[in-house]
Order: sequence, then structure tokens, then C-alpha cells
Amino acid sequence: MKRALTAMMLAGVLSAAPHASFAAGDIKAGRAKATACAACHGIDGMSKLPEAPNLAGQTEEYLVKALNDFRTGERKNEMMSMMAKTLSDADVANLAAYYHSLGKQ
Amino acid sequence: MKRALTAMMLAGVLSAAPHASFAAGDIKAGRAKATACAACHGIDGMSKLPEAPNLAGQTEEYLVKALNDFRTGERKNEMMSMMAKTLSDADVANLAAYYHSLGKQ
Repeated sequence: MKRALTAMMLAGVLSAAPHASFAAGDIKAGRAKATACAACHGIDGMSKLPEAPNLAGQTEEYLVKALNDFRTGERKNEMMSMMAKTLSDADVANLAAYYHSLGKQ
Repeated sequence: MKRALTAMMLAGVLSAAPHASFAAGDIKAGRAKATACAACHGIDGMSKLPEAPNLAGQTEEYLVKALNDFRTGERKNEMMSMMAKTLSDADVANLAAYYHSLGKQ
């Protein structure tokens, strides 16, 4: 019983921790928004240009951080700094959820 | 004949262009070096931590740029800024070749 409780508590910690720092996004809304990203990153998340990274299946937390870093200017890129400025917090969450989800197909 | 020549010339341009800006790396040497990256990015290029991106099959040019941006300080990350400082130009090329190659398995 004690072991089961410990396992449940551990599972709770592990499942909660990775998502603690961002809100869950809406995959369908992310797909709609991703039309603006598709020319370089592909609507399937597979890069169309060697300098643009593949995004399919990328970890959601990393995608959120990358977009937010471009929004704040912490990270700079000619194209992405411009594109990210048009995004809301919800857009970022939705796009991250969408591109992350493509790795599960 | 003219059409075939045009197609050949176009193919030449397309195949040369993506690799123009960096030297081809050695996949085997990259795998040996990647032991230092594996704790976070996985030796198979699949992230072990939500904040660390998957690297398997990532475009080679993007990987080279990311590592070089961490080396120069153009891009900053607590872990990567430290790790990238230990890398030579050859290490960067080899690591990029290795992690890129994992997408072809």
C-alpha cells in the first residue's frame, strides 16, 4: 500500500512537472495558424529549407520557449523575429501543441 | 535535349546550394562526441528532458548554425552555452552530421 501510494505520488509529480510552465494548446487552432509557418517548416513539420528546423514531434516545452524567445528578442532570426511578433500567448501554445502532435502520427 | 540540360543544371544548383555554407561532417566521429549530449538529447536524438529539443533527423544546416550560435554567444542557454564552448569546428560538423543521420534510419 505504501509502495503504491509512493508510486502514485511519483507519477503525479512526473506528469505535472513537464507542463508546469505553459498552458496546454489547442492542436486544431495550431494547425490553422501554422499555414503561416508552412512555407519554411512545412504543414507537416518537415523543413522546406535547410536553414529552417524540422518541427514535427518536437517537445512542446521547447517549442513554446523558442517562440517566446523570438517574441522577446532573447533569440534573434531575421524571419522568426518578425513572424513571432504577430503571435499571442494562445497562438504560441496552439502552434507548439500542433507541431508536437505531428510526432505521434 | 534543351529540357534535359535545364533539368540537370537545376538539379546541380539545388543539390549544391544547401551544403554550400558548411563542411560535411563525419557521422561516426559525431556519434562518439555525442555521448556528451546524450543525457539531455538522447544518443538516439530523442529528448530526455522536455526543455531539450529532439535532434534526430534535424536539418544539418540548422544544427551547425545552432551550435555555432551557442559558441559565439549569439544564442544563449545555461547548458548549451557551456557545452558548445568545448567544441571545435570539426566537432560541430560531426555532431550535426550524426544527429541529422538519425532521421534516415
